[in-house]
Amino acid sequence: MPTLRIALAQDNPTVGDLKGNAAQIRSSARRAFDAGADLLVTGELSLCGYPVEDLALRHTFIQQCKEDLLRLAADLEAEGLGPLPVTVGYLDADGPLGEVDHPTEGSRGIRNALALVHEGKVVFRYYKHHLPNYGVFDEDRYFVAGHNLDLARIGGVDIAFTICEDMWQQGVPFEAARQAGAGLVVSSNASPYERGKADERSRLLQRRAASTECPIAYLNVVGGQDELVFDGDSRIVDTEGGLVANGSRFAEDLVVADLDLKEAGEFGDLANLSAGTPMSVTRHDLSDAPRADKGALPPVELRPTLSPHQEVWEALRTGLADYVRKNGFKSVLFGLSGGIDSAVTAVLAADALGAEQVWSVAMPSQFSSQHSLDDAADLAERTGINHTVEPVQPIVDAVLSQLALSGLALENLQARTRGVLLMAMSNQHGHLVLAPGNKSEYAVGYSTLYGDSVGGFAPIKDVPKTLIFELAKWRNEHAERNGETAPIPENIISKPPSAELRPDQKDSDSLPDYDVLDRILDLYVDGDVGRADLVERGYDPDLVERVTGLVDGAEYKRRQTAPGTKISAKSFGRDRRLPITNRFRG
Amino acid sequence: MPTLRIALAQDNPTVGDLKGNAAQIRSSARRAFDAGADLLVTGELSLCGYPVEDLALRHTFIQQCKEDLLRLAADLEAEGLGPLPVTVGYLDADGPLGEVDHPTEGSRGIRNALALVHEGKVVFRYYKHHLPNYGVFDEDRYFVAGHNLDLARIGGVDIAFTICEDMWQQGVPFEAARQAGAGLVVSSNASPYERGKADERSRLLQRRAASTECPIAYLNVVGGQDELVFDGDSRIVDTEGGLVANGSRFAEDLVVADLDLKEAGEFGDLANLSAGTPMSVTRHDLSDAPRADKGALPPVELRPTLSPHQEVWEALRTGLADYVRKNGFKSVLFGLSGGIDSAVTAVLAADALGAEQVWSVAMPSQFSSQHSLDDAADLAERTGINHTVEPVQPIVDAVLSQLALSGLALENLQARTRGVLLMAMSNQHGHLVLAPGNKSEYAVGYSTLYGDSVGGFAPIKDVPKTLIFELAKWRNEHAERNGETAPIPENIISKPPSAELRPDQKDSDSLPDYDVLDRILDLYVDGDVGRADLVERGYDPDLVERVTGLVDGAEYKRRQTAPGTKISAKSFGRDRRLPITNRFRG
Repeated sequence: MPTLRIALAQDNPTVGDLKGNAAQIRSSARRAFDAGADLLVTGELSLCGYPVEDLALRHTFIQQCKEDLLRLAADLEAEGLGPLPVTVGYLDADGPLGEVDHPTEGSRGIRNALALVHEGKVVFRYYKHHLPNYGVFDEDRYFVAGHNLDLARIGGVDIAFTICEDMWQQGVPFEAARQAGAGLVVSSNASPYERGKADERSRLLQRRAASTECPIAYLNVVGGQDELVFDGDSRIVDTEGGLVANGSRFAEDLVVADLDLKEAGEFGDLANLSAGTPMSVTRHDLSDAPRADKGALPPVELRPTLSPHQEVWEALRTGLADYVRKNGFKSVLFGLSGGIDSAVTAVLAADALGAEQVWSVAMPSQFSSQHSLDDAADLAERTGINHTVEPVQPIVDAVLSQLALSGLALENLQARTRGVLLMAMSNQHGHLVLAPGNKSEYAVGYSTLYGDSVGGFAPIKDVPKTLIFELAKWRNEHAERNGETAPIPENIISKPPSAELRPDQKDSDSLPDYDVLDRILDLYVDGDVGRADLVERGYDPDLVERVTGLVDGAEYKRRQTAPGTKISAKSFGRDRRLPITNRFRG
Repeated sequence: MPTLRIALAQDNPTVGDLKGNAAQIRSSARRAFDAGADLLVTGELSLCGYPVEDLALRHTFIQQCKEDLLRLAADLEAEGLGPLPVTVGYLDADGPLGEVDHPTEGSRGIRNALALVHEGKVVFRYYKHHLPNYGVFDEDRYFVAGHNLDLARIGGVDIAFTICEDMWQQGVPFEAARQAGAGLVVSSNASPYERGKADERSRLLQRRAASTECPIAYLNVVGGQDELVFDGDSRIVDTEGGLVANGSRFAEDLVVADLDLKEAGEFGDLANLSAGTPMSVTRHDLSDAPRADKGALPPVELRPTLSPHQEVWEALRTGLADYVRKNGFKSVLFGLSGGIDSAVTAVLAADALGAEQVWSVAMPSQFSSQHSLDDAADLAERTGINHTVEPVQPIVDAVLSQLALSGLALENLQARTRGVLLMAMSNQHGHLVLAPGNKSEYAVGYSTLYGDSVGGFAPIKDVPKTLIFELAKWRNEHAERNGETAPIPENIISKPPSAELRPDQKDSDSLPDYDVLDRILDLYVDGDVGRADLVERGYDPDLVERVTGLVDGAEYKRRQTAPGTKISAKSFGRDRRLPITNRFRG
């Protein structure tokens, strides 16, 4: 059996940053080459970043992608790395992208493409076959599917190349790879993190390896990009699904492993093997002979798995760190109230950016308790983040001397005055403001629009309140296990949550207990379980009516976006229709 | 030739309001029946509203749609309207919608459906064939395509039924209708308004009627729904494309016309006619004999066309009016600065809701000019809207006594203090806040996040500044033509635009002249013309660099959303993943 040394570049690209991403690929290629690799795999759309969204519809951007792919191939060759075959993910298009009569974007022939570059040239361009169009994915909007599978013969082994969703769907292209007698299938991914996805991914790889009858080299990118976070977790599995080597979670890595692979058969049976599938197969011969012996690699050390809480923490930390960096900020600012949400936000920020880049401010009103101020100061002391106090009461009083306000209007006023102070400090000093709201609050509208929801990034917006408490406890225990000071004062974790916007206010005045609320939200929002089914599962009908009514109807929710009437085909009405980056200069 | 009396119900449904929409359909059916109609056509998804977005993924909602369709059929029968065949748009699904392993939503078999109900029963269920997935459309995300065309024989004429995009694409199903010998094709639409779309639609109808060799009854809904506005403009055209009857623009209407139509041929050639197309055809026999003579209708009076400016004005007015009503508000509130944007917003609001429901407030800072205050008061006087003055300087001073601010931070502080006052008044009195920003400003980030961008609805967010001026002039002239007072003081139109956030500030200090800016924005944002191409078209390279840099990189833009790290498959990260209405109780 021929042996091949496969390298996976678990890099962290930035959407739109063609030059920076190309530099990453060249750096990984250098290290893979020096390690004696016979093939380097990079991520899905590694040259332009993922998710590329509406940049995919700008013809100047696609043109630049195509040109930069050729430049990258030439650069690799010029640097002496030409002998190493490297996959590069990029945007392609069949022809010039002109105006179309009726803008069925698919008809413009834009492709989610993988090129294999070798000796300064592009050997082939594979176009992703399965285009996901659910959840966070919108690929039917941008791309048309490819229907040809490319195999490259490298060191006497036929290697098939696929992109992300291609592996998640049964049938072709993996079935075509099996019929073509592939000795290895490469899967290049930008697969967003979800809780529990590592296990799902691992099981899927086992199944696909078994059904395809060959090992799989699965490469996933890493890092935060806008809302998404990629967890790495690249894996090389053998035909039985056994883990040969893997990449770190939430950190860049270069995975290198030697694989004994099935020797390629004769050419010439292409017509037969593609029969019965809607996919043709093209073979490319790079090197027919087994490669020379390179000696054995040091034994591969498998990367450790993470506990469930550590995994979530690392996802949140990575998402925050990369959002700040990729958007050109260095430091963050937020209100530190002494409550659990801003406490967890503070520790996440310190872990992500270093305490010296974290600026917190307590902004007490007349209803703020002394223990809240003390707890906030205690946390700042423990973590070393910057901390100041700016009372809002004088500003609140200035508004009240002008307008007669009561009830909710008065509560919201305090939160909004804090928003004004945060944005003023942000404008003056250049910090990115963080919004410390959690998923439970946002779901039921228990937050103040333009108040505590102010900010450019909401690190824990997708974390239910009960999980916030668990993460706080886990982070403290994690510190203690490492002989460090627990960052979060115990009182912040144990006291009942309160917005402190009126005397003796508690969250429980307005909301059910968070453990009940979060269970209902999980079922109703994430689980698509309707009202009648919730009652059938034993939840109190009044409670179900109240919670689902809050979710559906919260006035704040309705006001949280400012839609307006569209009068042209393209408008600024939907975020993704905005040019999303200034990093591309096409 | 048999004569049929065709009625089109140009109604204004609300997304999620199944009961209200069913009542609309019953009311239109009553009027059509009383007018002697042989067929009533209602809009695309007339029972559940359009765009239904993520409600389409809730199985309880689809179940309710299916049940309410049957109830509607029974109600029509019970009311004595059973003999009138009525099309009803609704959501269908092939079977129970359970959890799916891998959430390719298409695999759940959800359908954008049209049912023909007659005599208390559903005659057939047609599933939309062409699913648009570009621009404002996301139908590949929600629906699977149908591949069967239904023909109903009514009064001896074979009528084919299609939905919206089905007409915009060449080939089937219109080609299948031609081959099947249809005497009439019905096209049921929810087709959003764009500038110039009426002409495009008219030309398309001519082409399709000619190629299909029969008349077309085209029904479009009317009214605002979230960001979209539907303009009505229903049309019945003969085989030559001549306009037989039409519906109003931007107003509910019932179009009734008598058509002489081709007599249906024999059944039995279904196998042949569907050959060569990927679509089967099913025929349903409601009434083979020509219907009894009903006497002639009074001559049809064609609805007038609108001038380009009136058309845009009506679109903006309709979008605003329906957003307010459909979200349960009665009144609106906004800052009236004395500038052109808030002036146009004020007049639009008065036209949409009546002056007594419109609340405007001038909020001068130390940099506000007396002429601005005078102009605002003058406009309020002319239009009869409510108007008060609330100075912000004391609140600004209270902040400044606490924080040392300068430059942009100081400018933004004034705008944000106004946002606080508006939201406080909104909370206290229940008005919906309007954000009066225009498209040019938003595109280049020339607005203050949480300041003048505060609001639940931005009526003119898609209107370039130059068009704002044109609309202001048109509205004044329109008033004068009708012998009314011009609502907008001439000085508001003629003075140079200024944000008045520092001494002697002018927009032209920061931005190119709006006529140049708007031309570049149109090319760069809407036209996908890149930097190099703009320079080639004769625009100054520095200007191109500056404007496109503002569009791509405006710091405000980057901060205008607060994304956060997603850690679950569904989250609140994308608006459309939110339950969008409290009007559905499934």
